[in-house]
Amino acid sequence: MTGYAAPIRRLIQELSRFPGVGEKTATRLALHILTAAEEDARRLAESIIEVKQKIRLCPICFNLTDKERCDICRDATRDKEAICVVSDPDSLVAVEESGSFQGTYHVLHGLLSPIDGIGPESLRLQELLDRISHDSVREVILATNPSVQGESTALLIAKLLHDKDITITRIALGVPVGGDLKYTDKMTMAKAIEFRRGM
Amino acid sequence: MTGYAAPIRRLIQELSRFPGVGEKTATRLALHILTAAEEDARRLAESIIEVKQKIRLCPICFNLTDKERCDICRDATRDKEAICVVSDPDSLVAVEESGSFQGTYHVLHGLLSPIDGIGPESLRLQELLDRISHDSVREVILATNPSVQGESTALLIAKLLHDKDITITRIALGVPVGGDLKYTDKMTMAKAIEFRRGM
Repeated sequence: MTGYAAPIRRLIQELSRFPGVGEKTATRLALHILTAAEEDARRLAESIIEVKQKIRLCPICFNLTDKERCDICRDATRDKEAICVVSDPDSLVAVEESGSFQGTYHVLHGLLSPIDGIGPESLRLQELLDRISHDSVREVILATNPSVQGESTALLIAKLLHDKDITITRIALGVPVGGDLKYTDKMTMAKAIEFRRGM
Repeated sequence: MTGYAAPIRRLIQELSRFPGVGEKTATRLALHILTAAEEDARRLAESIIEVKQKIRLCPICFNLTDKERCDICRDATRDKEAICVVSDPDSLVAVEESGSFQGTYHVLHGLLSPIDGIGPESLRLQELLDRISHDSVREVILATNPSVQGESTALLIAKLLHDKDITITRIALGVPVGGDLKYTDKMTMAKAIEFRRGM
C-alpha cells in the first residue's frame, strides 16, 4: 500500500473500515474506483452521503426508513396484531422476502451477548413491551437467529411476555430447503428429527 | 433488497458495481455505512471524490500519481537504466514492496488478450518503445503475470526489443516462499524443477 499515491492510500484506509474487508480487498476496490467512470464514482459517493442523511429508524418497529414511518408500518393491509421480532434490518428483509409473513415487525437492533456487554437494556425491548401494552397484539413470532445469542434473546422475550394474553411462537429449526443431509451438521439434523411433523 | 428504503437500495446498487461484490456483500457494506459514524461515512465519500480528482497517470511510466510525475520517476536515486514492465499499478506495488528493485517501472495497463479484444494497441507499448529509444536503458525486466496473457505479452515485448542493445529478462517461476510442495500445482512444480539452480 505504501507504493500508492497519498489519495489512494487514504481511500484504501477508509475502505478497510468495512467489516471483512482487509487491505488487499480495499486495494482492489480502490483501484476499481480509479478506473471506474467519473460519474459512477460520484454516484457512489453521493449514495453514501444520502443514506446517512435520509435514513432513520421507524418510531414504531425500528426498521430503517427514509420516511416518517416505515413502509410496512404505514401499510394498512398488514396485520398489526402479529409482530415478528428480529435482531436486525437484514433479518427483517430475509423474512419479508420469503413472502410468508403479512404482519408487522419489531427490530431489536442486536441480540443478548453478555460477553460483548450487550444486555437487555441495549436492545429495543422496552419499546416492544410498550407497543404490546398499547396496541392489540395477538401473536409475537420470535425470529432471532438459531444461535446461542438468538436463543437466549428469544427466551428472555418469551419470559417477559409470559403473563400477557399473547401467542408466542419461535421460527422452526430444521434442514434448509435444497440442503443435502450429507452436509447438514449434527445439531441441525438432531433438530430436524426432533421437530419432525406428521404427514 | 426490495425490503430496504430507496436510499439504501441505491447505495447497495452502487456498491454492487465493485468487482467480486454481489448483492449480499453490497448489502452488508451498506448496512455498515448506515451504522458507522457520520464522520467516517463522510470521509469515505470524500476519499472517493478525491482519488477521481487528484489521481492521474505519470507521463513517463504510467504509474498512478497525484503529482506531475510519480514518486519513483522523480526519485534521483532510482536506476533509470533499468525498467521493470508490469501490467498494472498493483503489480508495481507488489514488486516495489518486495524491496528488491531499485530501477524504474513501465505500467502497460493491461495484458494481451485477443479473446477480450485487447491487442498491442490497447497497451502502453508504444510509450515504452519511445522511452527506450530516447533514454539510455540497460535492462528491461518483464514482470507480467505467469499466465497465458502475461507470457504472450512478455514474448511480444521481447520480440519488439530484440534488435536493441538491451538485456531483456523475465521474472523467475517456481514454488512460492513458504509454500508447501504438497499443495503446489503441477505446472508450478514442473517450472520449479526445470529452473532449478546449482547450490
